[in-house]
Amino acid sequence: MSAEEASALQHKAEEQMQETELSKEPNEKESQPSSDTAAASPEADEDAFTYRSLVLCGYGGYDKVKLQVMQGMPVPKKGEVMIRVKACGLNFADLVARQGLYERLPPPPITLGMECAGVVEAVGEGVTGRKVGDKVFAVNAYGLWQEVVLTGAQYTFTMPEGISFEEAAAFPVNYMTAYLLLFKFANLQPHQSVLVHMAAGGVGTAVTQLCKLVEGVTLFGTASASKHEAIRQGGVTHPIEYQSYVDDIRKISPKGLDIVLDPLGGSDVQQGFDLLKPMGRLVTYGFANALTGPKKNRMALAKMWYNEFSIKAMALMQSNKVVCGFHLGYLYKEREVFEEVVGKLLELYKQGKIKPRVDSVHHFEQVGDAMRRMQERLNIGKVILLPEPNKEEESKDEAKKEAELKEDTAKDEEPEKEDN
Amino acid sequence: MSAEEASALQHKAEEQMQETELSKEPNEKESQPSSDTAAASPEADEDAFTYRSLVLCGYGGYDKVKLQVMQGMPVPKKGEVMIRVKACGLNFADLVARQGLYERLPPPPITLGMECAGVVEAVGEGVTGRKVGDKVFAVNAYGLWQEVVLTGAQYTFTMPEGISFEEAAAFPVNYMTAYLLLFKFANLQPHQSVLVHMAAGGVGTAVTQLCKLVEGVTLFGTASASKHEAIRQGGVTHPIEYQSYVDDIRKISPKGLDIVLDPLGGSDVQQGFDLLKPMGRLVTYGFANALTGPKKNRMALAKMWYNEFSIKAMALMQSNKVVCGFHLGYLYKEREVFEEVVGKLLELYKQGKIKPRVDSVHHFEQVGDAMRRMQERLNIGKVILLPEPNKEEESKDEAKKEAELKEDTAKDEEPEKEDN
Repeated sequence: MSAEEASALQHKAEEQMQETELSKEPNEKESQPSSDTAAASPEADEDAFTYRSLVLCGYGGYDKVKLQVMQGMPVPKKGEVMIRVKACGLNFADLVARQGLYERLPPPPITLGMECAGVVEAVGEGVTGRKVGDKVFAVNAYGLWQEVVLTGAQYTFTMPEGISFEEAAAFPVNYMTAYLLLFKFANLQPHQSVLVHMAAGGVGTAVTQLCKLVEGVTLFGTASASKHEAIRQGGVTHPIEYQSYVDDIRKISPKGLDIVLDPLGGSDVQQGFDLLKPMGRLVTYGFANALTGPKKNRMALAKMWYNEFSIKAMALMQSNKVVCGFHLGYLYKEREVFEEVVGKLLELYKQGKIKPRVDSVHHFEQVGDAMRRMQERLNIGKVILLPEPNKEEESKDEAKKEAELKEDTAKDEEPEKEDN
Repeated sequence: MSAEEASALQHKAEEQMQETELSKEPNEKESQPSSDTAAASPEADEDAFTYRSLVLCGYGGYDKVKLQVMQGMPVPKKGEVMIRVKACGLNFADLVARQGLYERLPPPPITLGMECAGVVEAVGEGVTGRKVGDKVFAVNAYGLWQEVVLTGAQYTFTMPEGISFEEAAAFPVNYMTAYLLLFKFANLQPHQSVLVHMAAGGVGTAVTQLCKLVEGVTLFGTASASKHEAIRQGGVTHPIEYQSYVDDIRKISPKGLDIVLDPLGGSDVQQGFDLLKPMGRLVTYGFANALTGPKKNRMALAKMWYNEFSIKAMALMQSNKVVCGFHLGYLYKEREVFEEVVGKLLELYKQGKIKPRVDSVHHFEQVGDAMRRMQERLNIGKVILLPEPNKEEESKDEAKKEAELKEDTAKDEEPEKEDN
């Protein structure tokens, strides 16, 4: 199936999206188009230009993210670059967004995607640090799951030598998150003990690698038993199962922990807080407990809100503890923080001290598969999306996808509690 | 007035306290008296031994702390030392305790006092690091405002060369608090901005000195206008008045602050939280707002509890902020932390980088004056108590004290809101 055919298929089912709207998404604030961009092809060619995009067309299950073909060449405005995307990262926040639980994003239709890696194909006026041909990765709150992306140059970072596009796309969100959690919020020190949930996931893998850089850290990580050997080899000192983590940790470390990293939300935050030693630090940075299946589960949400961690000043004083909240999506404006953290991470990558672990690679057509893999916690490491069509597999994929969508509809409301 | 006469006077008004009870206070857990202590004087001499003690006899105003004379020589048990106390520090927590608001202490009668400095006069079995004649300072939750103190050797620290007893008594609580607040909880980094309330107080002075050790720190400090010049000279970058601190800080630092240290409680905690930049850190470590006068003010307490800061996980996540609670009284068991922090502070003292600022020195008879001075925020630096009788001033003091006690009774219920 050609790009044009794919487009026609999508347009049957949903309203056509305006390319101008989409190209604006990653950089809403820059409203002045530049007249002298690097993309200097004749107007007719620009109009004929098409690119593939994964668009959230409504809140719900895996089928709400549709492959669409956009038309018309995006032209970088002042301060922007155009990236030919080679690989994208999938994050838990994308699953949250698909269910309509990420209040920070505009309503659908909207192109999803918080990170990508690719090659700069054009630069807008005033861009000095990037040039055509540069390999870069980019982060933003959404809009990066596209074959071609426009984004502010300040949201891009030059890829280090020797890194693949897949690895580069796996890099920014997970490693920035892990770095900020450990070193800017929890202030990890030598010989401390840390608990991270979903230790086999993207953030969990990055946390594990970064903990290894600090002397004598004891890392507890929850994951399903089938992943324990893999995460132990990765560097988790004590792989434990989610179902019994409080008891397991108390047995091994009766005095409690120095740091708890909680992406789960709900009652786990309180349990993590209770596991802390005096002067211990909890960082709450997600609510994966709300994602029990492909679609919004109102019961799980209600349970999570009912059990939401809450603390008052006096109780906090008497505990001598620290609670931190972290949400990368609300930090995008803090450019200095990003520059500093990515700079340090790239240095660590170049020194061979950290290396993204890619779990699996899926073409855009397989985005449902990719999301399901993450939703069902089957991944060990990062799930990657490729914009480029998988021509050999195309017909097979389409058939498979249709079958899956039917299955999804049947499964949508089933809560899945295992393997947090 | 001799010690015996003072004793007789006290005993008129209140129940006689058993010396055995008092001597046990600082070391409740050691129940085995040692038979071979250094205090080897004959039994008759031991019984005749007396020492002065500031005893909280009930909750209320300044008159509830009474000077009493205890009889019988305290004998250090295993692991304990006996200290001949030369100077004691007064802390906000002592005022809180007097009003019955410090739930961690046993009920009256109880000897108050969280810190003292003096000379080791006897050591119990098994004490290796301290010997008779050592100059030491000690910290504990209570029980140290006495001429002679028994305490576990692990709660004592050797005084550095050249420090006076007054300075040494001013050292432990304020500097440990300031160090823990800044470096263990708020994780102060170069070029950050800090707000500390009651900047002219003991903790405020210590915070100011420690902030000067970190490059490029901007320190905002609230104090009444009359103290601004003094705290500016001490190192506060921006002395500001409590009444307008939110506006004043917003004018100078529109993006907000990196760190807020809040000893006030109530609505100030939320205001401090709101003043933080993303990734900023608030430490709540007291509720001075509850102390509006000598006696418990139910209205102020109700207002404080009504306005108590409370935060939920999701709001914390979306703010990307950190909230910490600190209470030294709940950290006394963390010996490693104490050793580390006091070790670092003593090193800084020896290097001339920190120096306790003594506001005023009061004999035990003047404890009411001392507490009033702190309550009314008249002090700049530390208020010190001396166990030794002030013989020259004795008769004058007594007359003054009686007049004050009458005044207190009249003033007891007046809230005083100024100069937090």
